[in-house]
Amino acid sequence: MNLQRLEGMQCVLPALQQRRRRIQLLILKHGLPDAKIADLLLEAERQKIPVQRLLKPEIDAMAYGRTHGGVLALCSAKPPGSMDELHQLIETQASATLLLLLEGVEDTQNLGYTMRSAEALGVQAILLKKHLWDFDETAVSRSSSGAYERLPLIKIERGAEELKGLQKRGLKIWGCLANAKRTCYDMDLTQPCVLAIGGEKRGLSGAVRDRCDGFMKIPMRQGASSLSLSHAACILMGEAMRQRRVLSPSIAENKEN
Amino acid sequence: MNLQRLEGMQCVLPALQQRRRRIQLLILKHGLPDAKIADLLLEAERQKIPVQRLLKPEIDAMAYGRTHGGVLALCSAKPPGSMDELHQLIETQASATLLLLLEGVEDTQNLGYTMRSAEALGVQAILLKKHLWDFDETAVSRSSSGAYERLPLIKIERGAEELKGLQKRGLKIWGCLANAKRTCYDMDLTQPCVLAIGGEKRGLSGAVRDRCDGFMKIPMRQGASSLSLSHAACILMGEAMRQRRVLSPSIAENKEN
Repeated sequence: MNLQRLEGMQCVLPALQQRRRRIQLLILKHGLPDAKIADLLLEAERQKIPVQRLLKPEIDAMAYGRTHGGVLALCSAKPPGSMDELHQLIETQASATLLLLLEGVEDTQNLGYTMRSAEALGVQAILLKKHLWDFDETAVSRSSSGAYERLPLIKIERGAEELKGLQKRGLKIWGCLANAKRTCYDMDLTQPCVLAIGGEKRGLSGAVRDRCDGFMKIPMRQGASSLSLSHAACILMGEAMRQRRVLSPSIAENKEN
Repeated sequence: MNLQRLEGMQCVLPALQQRRRRIQLLILKHGLPDAKIADLLLEAERQKIPVQRLLKPEIDAMAYGRTHGGVLALCSAKPPGSMDELHQLIETQASATLLLLLEGVEDTQNLGYTMRSAEALGVQAILLKKHLWDFDETAVSRSSSGAYERLPLIKIERGAEELKGLQKRGLKIWGCLANAKRTCYDMDLTQPCVLAIGGEKRGLSGAVRDRCDGFMKIPMRQGASSLSLSHAACILMGEAMRQRRVLSPSIAENKEN
């Protein structure tokens, strides 16, 4: 088994709680306050995961980044979500399904940030093509602030067929294109849908375009360069959130956020 | 003079056109198509800037990144914009002023991405506190896709006084706070205003909060981690764009974007 390192409370705790990865070892710095690590220890005990206490320099030497805060885990890769899982998730979803399909993601940091915002803005799963599946999970998880551990990331093998399956279930596929006639503000994003966004260089692939039910653009100032993939996704998800905010019970405007 | 390197057409061309930096030398790879570099050569000739042709390995050895595409410039730092400049810009602005005040920006890539989106979404200048002014300009310019060269970045020396000056001009300062009562969707962002956003760790400083005319939050799903600074800014600017899109003549929903 190819072991991975997860670093920092915000990645390690959801990884333990979600139980999608097999955690081999939980590593904690000596002297971390009990209150801070109580949830970690509870989960480790429940799942019979060994805990090792190390000194800060030992952890520093093992860690990839510098923001681990004394919490590390050695674990298996997070298995990609399947279409079966996605269909099950859609069936059990109380609110209207909102999915994000990304093509042409160019770096792990952007994938991580996009997942973090997707989770915050009510997206229930992210679809990613098979050939984009070669990324550094540790880096994505860290830049996603742990959203990577919680949010299903679904591996798309073929594309057209899988999108057709979602359409049969009643989802609309809305593609983001620079030269679309309608803006995202003129689309009804309250109904079950997939927001499809292409990479900055090539945009959406022909295979995905062919399956789209319609297209939308983000209005922009003339003469400016385009938005990055992650910011374009953020605007679209934010607009879906705005339109849906009185409809969904799971999106509370709570004071803690 | 501390010379900087600018890399790539999308940074070097606007730097030449804006004339805010003093360009000492324009470096071009041998064999770049004439059509591609015509605008560069025209500006260089107008401003009597020497042009050096080099081979790709020579440019690779000088460049910081790998996406220069054979275009480099040696130049002075971009001088920070002053409050005087900002007041002048507000006076000559045809549409309602929209400014972005950032506190606690943690990395250059995020600053660059935020500037890129700010330009695309109709922000006219970005305000940045003096102590945040220590960044790698080459990296910011590159990740901003050249927006850094075009968009005024104003250095705030004291904070409260400068914001007071903007309020006297009729601008409102709207602060983004996680526990605000109103959402950004309930705010009128069509009037002249400053969107003030704090860093992920500490939020807005007391000095800025004290000057705010009101606060707003971005509604989020419970249990998710917060949005990154750059994505939070993106949502707020996108909402201002949405509210203003029928009002402003400079924001065309043109087909080329």
